[in-house]
Amino acid sequence: MLDYPMRPAKALRPALCIAACRAVGGNADAPLPSAAAFELFHNAFLVHDDVEDGSRVRRHRPTLHTLLGVPMAVNVGDGMLALALEPLLDNIRVLGLGPSLRILQIFARLARESVEGQMMELSWVRQRRWGVTDREYLRMVHKKTGWYSFISPVLVGAIAGGAANPTRDAMGAFALCLGIAFQIKDDLLSLEATEAEIGKDTLGDLWEGKYTLALLHSLRTVASSDRALALDILARPQPRHDQPGMARIEPILSKLRAVLDPREWAELASAIDTDVVASKDEPGVRWLHRLVTGRNGESLQHARLVAERFANRAVRIFERDLGALPASVHKEFLKALCGFVLRRTS
Amino acid sequence: MLDYPMRPAKALRPALCIAACRAVGGNADAPLPSAAAFELFHNAFLVHDDVEDGSRVRRHRPTLHTLLGVPMAVNVGDGMLALALEPLLDNIRVLGLGPSLRILQIFARLARESVEGQMMELSWVRQRRWGVTDREYLRMVHKKTGWYSFISPVLVGAIAGGAANPTRDAMGAFALCLGIAFQIKDDLLSLEATEAEIGKDTLGDLWEGKYTLALLHSLRTVASSDRALALDILARPQPRHDQPGMARIEPILSKLRAVLDPREWAELASAIDTDVVASKDEPGVRWLHRLVTGRNGESLQHARLVAERFANRAVRIFERDLGALPASVHKEFLKALCGFVLRRTS
Repeated sequence: MLDYPMRPAKALRPALCIAACRAVGGNADAPLPSAAAFELFHNAFLVHDDVEDGSRVRRHRPTLHTLLGVPMAVNVGDGMLALALEPLLDNIRVLGLGPSLRILQIFARLARESVEGQMMELSWVRQRRWGVTDREYLRMVHKKTGWYSFISPVLVGAIAGGAANPTRDAMGAFALCLGIAFQIKDDLLSLEATEAEIGKDTLGDLWEGKYTLALLHSLRTVASSDRALALDILARPQPRHDQPGMARIEPILSKLRAVLDPREWAELASAIDTDVVASKDEPGVRWLHRLVTGRNGESLQHARLVAERFANRAVRIFERDLGALPASVHKEFLKALCGFVLRRTS
Repeated sequence: MLDYPMRPAKALRPALCIAACRAVGGNADAPLPSAAAFELFHNAFLVHDDVEDGSRVRRHRPTLHTLLGVPMAVNVGDGMLALALEPLLDNIRVLGLGPSLRILQIFARLARESVEGQMMELSWVRQRRWGVTDREYLRMVHKKTGWYSFISPVLVGAIAGGAANPTRDAMGAFALCLGIAFQIKDDLLSLEATEAEIGKDTLGDLWEGKYTLALLHSLRTVASSDRALALDILARPQPRHDQPGMARIEPILSKLRAVLDPREWAELASAIDTDVVASKDEPGVRWLHRLVTGRNGESLQHARLVAERFANRAVRIFERDLGALPASVHKEFLKALCGFVLRRTS
């Protein structure tokens, strides 16, 4: 359980929770149990997400299920979810009953929203539905990233800091816009950054067949023959990393096809890992990458513009509804995030 | 999320929770949100357990991950864990703050205990450690089954019913003994009952390499050559059910070995699912079954005696510490479980 939490990371959710609490005038101790719970929750979901997505690298190291196997990794994630409940109960000593219960209710909501968002995306993948609109993408991100990584940390921070309801709600609206901008930038980094920069699989979103604005824009705007090829590549599963690539054994297989009768050939083929046979390969994913980043970067530019629109909206909400908060380094930190989410390189 | 909960099942944990509450004088509404939370928690863990154990059948139907794939199944389990928090917060309206918070603390503890118990067993499997003593087995079962399925439901029921602390603690001690007897009987059913009776894989524990008193007793008492063969079979993984058995393609492979040079052969062999090559097979598991059930059933008898010892201890605790509870159908139900856990056939 200590493995992922001890790897270097941004600690974004605890940072948001603590900054929101301090910005509304809360003291330094008030947000700490909740901040710890956020980091435990997040690390639990990362362990399960890596299983669900078949990811190889997380925070510059192999993913937990590649180190320990899927059974252990699923159980480690459950263990961390279980432990996260304890600091939330410690809140009662620090904050009293009322705020502690409101914080528990927010955790119940965030868990449900993020699972629903994940389920939306997994369902699209399962149905091979690629006619997803920008609006549907934004709704999924609202749940999966918005609630989970942005809205709930600032709401909890505001409650721990004793904010009035209008201030708390403004924090939530601000954080939603920030979160959407953050996620779109995250998608862009997966297309543009190196593994050394982001600490996880390069082009991971394309290998996993994840939904991004740039990919959806490309599918809407490229020639229909390119679109058909793209859908064909996206429909294939990721290769299993414990098997040699199909390309390597292709010459052997063609030699065997002559030796075996068709029934024998069919039985052999079915014993060979089906993921190897029909899985995505490096040239296919590189081709997809060129498709999404090509045409003078018009699809990337589309995604960048949407991200900027949400970052600007976050600035406007902050100035209008949170501008009256007393000046503090915490207030400045929150406001500065509006620029950071777009400029960051990792 | 509705799939497992809608399949017919015993609803053991809600039944224990409701009976404990009513037996100490609680009203009919008091235990219901907690009982719902137990059933949600349990179904979430079943979904994840089935992934971890590679099980095929649950409650007479295919397991969720065989229907939807591992990613969906892990996420469905997370969703149910998240939803379980909501009835626990509803408790505040029904029971007031104090009891609701004590119940939340018990859920935090039960989640940690059961994950620790699961981790103990997965670690033994991983280390191929088969010199586990009966005492170690009982400690694992105390955490994995005792806390999760017996102790926490009656503690929560007692709290919801407003029991005094000594009554609540006696309920917990009673339930622990009952739970250990239940688990040992569960292990015996996996060796002796049919799939139609228990609604899950027959000999599932042997296929999964699960630790049971009868298997541990056999390993301690059989001839050393039989022990070596048993450990060899137990060390093999379960076969993947989406692949044909190795036996079926063995003739084809031996034909190919003559055609290919050694390097080509090695590459082909590594592309063939390694679980198929080295996995447990039906004759091996049947042999294990005969080993554990043979020698006049001496290992089964050992397990039965330990189960009876714990069931008798449960009766003594009940009579000594809970005998003074007013007569009710709920009190009789709890006491009758001491016999039921040993006699049940499913």
